[in-house]
Amino acid sequence: MSMMTDAYTRKLDLAEGRVDLSHGAGGRAMRQLIEGIFHEAFDNEWLRAGNDQSAFAVSGGRMVMSTDGYVVSPLFFPGGNIGSLAVHGTINDIAMAAARPLYLSASFIIEEGFPLADLKRIADSMGVASREAAVPIITGDTKVVERGKADGVFISTAGVGRVLDGLDLRADAARPRDAVILSGSIGDHGVAVMSNRENLQFDAAIVSDSAPLHTLVAMMAEAGGRHIRLMRDPTRGGLAATLNEVASQSKVGFHIDEEAIPIKPEVAAVCELLGLDPLNVANEGKLVAVAAPEGAEAILAAMRAHPLGREAALIGHVVADDYCFVQMATSFGGRRVVDWLTGEQLPRIC
Amino acid sequence: MSMMTDAYTRKLDLAEGRVDLSHGAGGRAMRQLIEGIFHEAFDNEWLRAGNDQSAFAVSGGRMVMSTDGYVVSPLFFPGGNIGSLAVHGTINDIAMAAARPLYLSASFIIEEGFPLADLKRIADSMGVASREAAVPIITGDTKVVERGKADGVFISTAGVGRVLDGLDLRADAARPRDAVILSGSIGDHGVAVMSNRENLQFDAAIVSDSAPLHTLVAMMAEAGGRHIRLMRDPTRGGLAATLNEVASQSKVGFHIDEEAIPIKPEVAAVCELLGLDPLNVANEGKLVAVAAPEGAEAILAAMRAHPLGREAALIGHVVADDYCFVQMATSFGGRRVVDWLTGEQLPRIC
Repeated sequence: MSMMTDAYTRKLDLAEGRVDLSHGAGGRAMRQLIEGIFHEAFDNEWLRAGNDQSAFAVSGGRMVMSTDGYVVSPLFFPGGNIGSLAVHGTINDIAMAAARPLYLSASFIIEEGFPLADLKRIADSMGVASREAAVPIITGDTKVVERGKADGVFISTAGVGRVLDGLDLRADAARPRDAVILSGSIGDHGVAVMSNRENLQFDAAIVSDSAPLHTLVAMMAEAGGRHIRLMRDPTRGGLAATLNEVASQSKVGFHIDEEAIPIKPEVAAVCELLGLDPLNVANEGKLVAVAAPEGAEAILAAMRAHPLGREAALIGHVVADDYCFVQMATSFGGRRVVDWLTGEQLPRIC
Repeated sequence: MSMMTDAYTRKLDLAEGRVDLSHGAGGRAMRQLIEGIFHEAFDNEWLRAGNDQSAFAVSGGRMVMSTDGYVVSPLFFPGGNIGSLAVHGTINDIAMAAARPLYLSASFIIEEGFPLADLKRIADSMGVASREAAVPIITGDTKVVERGKADGVFISTAGVGRVLDGLDLRADAARPRDAVILSGSIGDHGVAVMSNRENLQFDAAIVSDSAPLHTLVAMMAEAGGRHIRLMRDPTRGGLAATLNEVASQSKVGFHIDEEAIPIKPEVAAVCELLGLDPLNVANEGKLVAVAAPEGAEAILAAMRAHPLGREAALIGHVVADDYCFVQMATSFGGRRVVDWLTGEQLPRIC
C-alpha cells in the first residue's frame, strides 16, 4: 500500500465494529477487511500474493473437487463454529474419495451489521482448523448483503485433493457380504447444535464431533485400501440417509445391528427428549466404510489405532435386495426398516 | 432408485412448486431437487456418478483455484441472471491467471419459498453457460434456510484450471512503460443491473456484458503470452478499483487516457443520470491486461480478432510513482486522480 492509501485508512475496529456494505463493494474497505481478518487468520503465501485466484503445482494423476455450503444456526456451538465446520466438512468430502486434501477456497456471504469480532472468531477458527489439518485456504471471496437479507454469515468452501494411488472408490461399488464399518459414535454434532439452539442445559456437555478425517482415511488406505469399496461421511440426514443413498446407488440392501452402533448415553438421552432418531442426526467427524469382507479386520484395526477411530465398529453387512432396504436388528430383538428422513426435522444443522 | 422409493416420491412441481426446508435436509426431497433440477440442467457424467465429490485426471503442471460468491439483486437482469453470472465470473477469475478453466463446483443457498420455476431457470442458464464454455459443473451442494434468512438464492462457484505452459502472471509484475490494454467497453454489467433494479426504461436496452473470457485469453497468450505481465477482470469496483489494486501491488502508477476507454453512449448517459462514475461500475465480460510495450501490438491485434475483444484498446501505460496514483487525462484536457470507490455506491452488483 502506498503512503497515501495508508493515511486514508480508518482502522478496523475489531472490538465494536460491524460489517457494512462498503466491506463488500470492491474498494478499499473490502481490501482492509480481507487483509485484516481473513489473510491474518489464514496466513499463507498464496493469499499474500493478492491474486483473484491461487496457483499450485500438481503431479499428474487423479484429483477430486468438492464443495459445501454452511448455514448452521447458531453460528457458534459446543465443539466448534461455522468456520471450523466449513473447513472440516470439505476436507471430509475430499477424504471420502480416498484422496489427500490439498487446498481449500472459501466464499463468505455476510449480513450487514454482523460484528467484526464474531467474523474474526470464525476466521480464526478456520485458520486453526486449516493449519491443524495442513490444508491451506488459498483463495476466497467476500460479499455483503443488506440487513435482513442473510443470517449473520454463510460460508461455502470448496476443496481439491489428490486420489491416493491405486484407489478408485465408487458409490455403486457395494456388493452383498461386504462389511459396513462405522468410525465412532453417532449423533454428536446434531445433538450439540440442537441442544444449543433449544437452550438445553445438561450435566454432561455434548460437543460436536466436527473433525477432519483425512489422516484416518490415510491409515485405512494403507492397511487395506484395495478392500475399501466406498466411504461416506454421514452428515445431514445421518447414518440412515447415507446407508439408504448407498443402497439405492449400489442396488443392494443393508442389514445393520443397532447394538453395534456406538452412541454416547447422553446423546441417546437428548435424542429421546427431543424425539429424534439418532440414525437421522448429523455427524461431522465420522465415516462409514463399505469394505470387502476379507479386508474388514485389517481396516478396523487400523482405524482403532487412530484417535478419531478408537470406537470404530463393524455394524452390519451388505445384502442382495431388489428393494434396496436398510434393515436394522433392534436392541429388542426385532427388525425394522430404516428409512430416509422425509421431513425437515433438523434444519440448518450444518 | 428402488421401486419402493419411486412409489413414495411426489413429483417436483416445476410450475407452481416452491423450495421448502425438506429440500435441504439431506433426505429424499433433497435428492429429488438435485436430480430434477441441477443434474438435469448441468447434465454430465460426473454428477451422474452421484458422489459427494468428483474425480478427474490431470497431467502434471501448475493449476489455479478460485471462488466467488454471487448475491446479485435482482436475480434476473438484461443479459443474464445469477446463474450464468456465477459460471462466467469464476471462469474469468481462472482465465485471468492465464489458465484454461477445467471444472467448476456450485454451492446453492436457497431461501424457503423460492419458486422452483425460478430455480430451474437459473440452473438451466448455468448449464447453458457451462456447456458453451466447455467447463462442466462437476460437483455441488444445496442448503435451504428459513424464509427471511436469505434473499432468494445465493450461489458460490469455485473453479480449477491449468496454467498455460510457460506463463506465470503475478499481481506485482507491472513495470513502468508497460502498456495497459482494455478488452472493450466499460460499465455495461453494472448499469444493466442498476437500471433493472431502479426500474429505469430506455429506448436502447442496456444488457450485461457477462461472458466467459477464457478463449480470448487463449488467443492473447498465443499471440504474445510471454509479454503479458498480468490480467484482471474489472468486476466490483470497476476499472478504477482494478487499476488501483494493481498499482499498489506492483508499486507503480498508471497514466490512462479517458478518450481511449470505450464506453457505450447509452451507458454513459445512464451513469450521468444515476450519478455514477463509469470507472467504478462493474464489468463481467471485460479484462485489463498489462503487457510489455514490445508485445502490445500483437496482443491487441489478437484480441480484436476475437468477438469479445473487437473493441480492445490501448488505454494508457504504467509509470513509476511512489504514491501509486492512477491518473487520467480527461476529455477536457485536464488530468485527475482516479481513486478507489470508498463507499457502498453499488451494493449487490454481482
